[in-house]
Amino acid sequence: MNSKARLILIAGGTCSGKTTIAEAIGRRLHDLKTVIVSHDYYYKDLAHLSLEERAKVNFDHPASIDKELLMEDLRQMLSGRAVNVPDYDFKLHSRVEGKLCVAEADVIILEGIFALYYPELVELSDLKIYVDTDSDTRLSRRLARDIVERGREVEGVLNQYMETVKPSHAAFIEPSKKNADVIIPGDKDFDKVLYMLHAYLRYDIKS
Amino acid sequence: MNSKARLILIAGGTCSGKTTIAEAIGRRLHDLKTVIVSHDYYYKDLAHLSLEERAKVNFDHPASIDKELLMEDLRQMLSGRAVNVPDYDFKLHSRVEGKLCVAEADVIILEGIFALYYPELVELSDLKIYVDTDSDTRLSRRLARDIVERGREVEGVLNQYMETVKPSHAAFIEPSKKNADVIIPGDKDFDKVLYMLHAYLRYDIKS
Repeated sequence: MNSKARLILIAGGTCSGKTTIAEAIGRRLHDLKTVIVSHDYYYKDLAHLSLEERAKVNFDHPASIDKELLMEDLRQMLSGRAVNVPDYDFKLHSRVEGKLCVAEADVIILEGIFALYYPELVELSDLKIYVDTDSDTRLSRRLARDIVERGREVEGVLNQYMETVKPSHAAFIEPSKKNADVIIPGDKDFDKVLYMLHAYLRYDIKS
Repeated sequence: MNSKARLILIAGGTCSGKTTIAEAIGRRLHDLKTVIVSHDYYYKDLAHLSLEERAKVNFDHPASIDKELLMEDLRQMLSGRAVNVPDYDFKLHSRVEGKLCVAEADVIILEGIFALYYPELVELSDLKIYVDTDSDTRLSRRLARDIVERGREVEGVLNQYMETVKPSHAAFIEPSKKNADVIIPGDKDFDKVLYMLHAYLRYDIKS
């Protein structure tokens, strides 16, 4: 049991670069046991709803995350106990067994658009990072991802963006920037920030 | 001569908290020789102008700084040579002899509203910080400073704010945030950021 486990939160809008930064921190901290958890694994299980009802749920709203389970699992991880992180089937909108098992991590990185939104989560964490990227850059990346990589239609992607993604950003994500200890520009090289984070975590955990 | 001297830039709008953060970094880095230089020491010497002409100069514009002298002095400091930092007489708008002599510093912190504006300065630096504070918080602090501490009239302070301070912020300061490696919220506790900076600088300079 590692009593010095640290929880880092990484928030920011869709396609702001959260995962890229989380993975770069993980690689950089090769001398510490680091695990990256996305809050997307913790969407609420909607198996009790009809498929029609499931399709109507707004997944760009903080209420779509099973915050209680997420908090419970994070508390277990921070106390060093082994946790099987669930996964999510986005087609069926239901929870499935995940492949990630976390045990005795030194650093737990939780990333997701709402990572700085929930007060209990913010309170539990040791370091709060917001990745700040221009909205047009984020939309451009999202179009590339959904259309080129996932084969979706432009119109559907843009409709979803304007109807739920953008309003959610303005209502829940952008204001959560206020909770950050540090804001990282998401559209430039972040080597120095990684260097700072690494030095900080080594110093904090090893000393 | 210290060949590992580091230059940290701290920019941000008027009353954003630049000096507070610079001083806190300086205190925190007690094991390193740190000096804080404000670019306000480097306003252009206007002694050749009449007092009337001097009063018309916009000091909230980046052209009001003697950038060449500032760059020359910083290069000297970074190479370890002793530099007498000038001072500025704001009543006469002319340069006067300063009290600060910098020699063999490990860390030079340059703070000022335009610290991330000049490309040559950004290029020369090792770490670029922008202190991001809401505009109403900054105006409130500025009113308190100018009226309570300096005995100025409300109307004059507000006129100056709306006529030169605010337009300059929008045109030169806010856009310079794009040059930052890291953005610090200026209206909350920044202990963790100090801890990160300290760990980074120790690691970078001592190793």
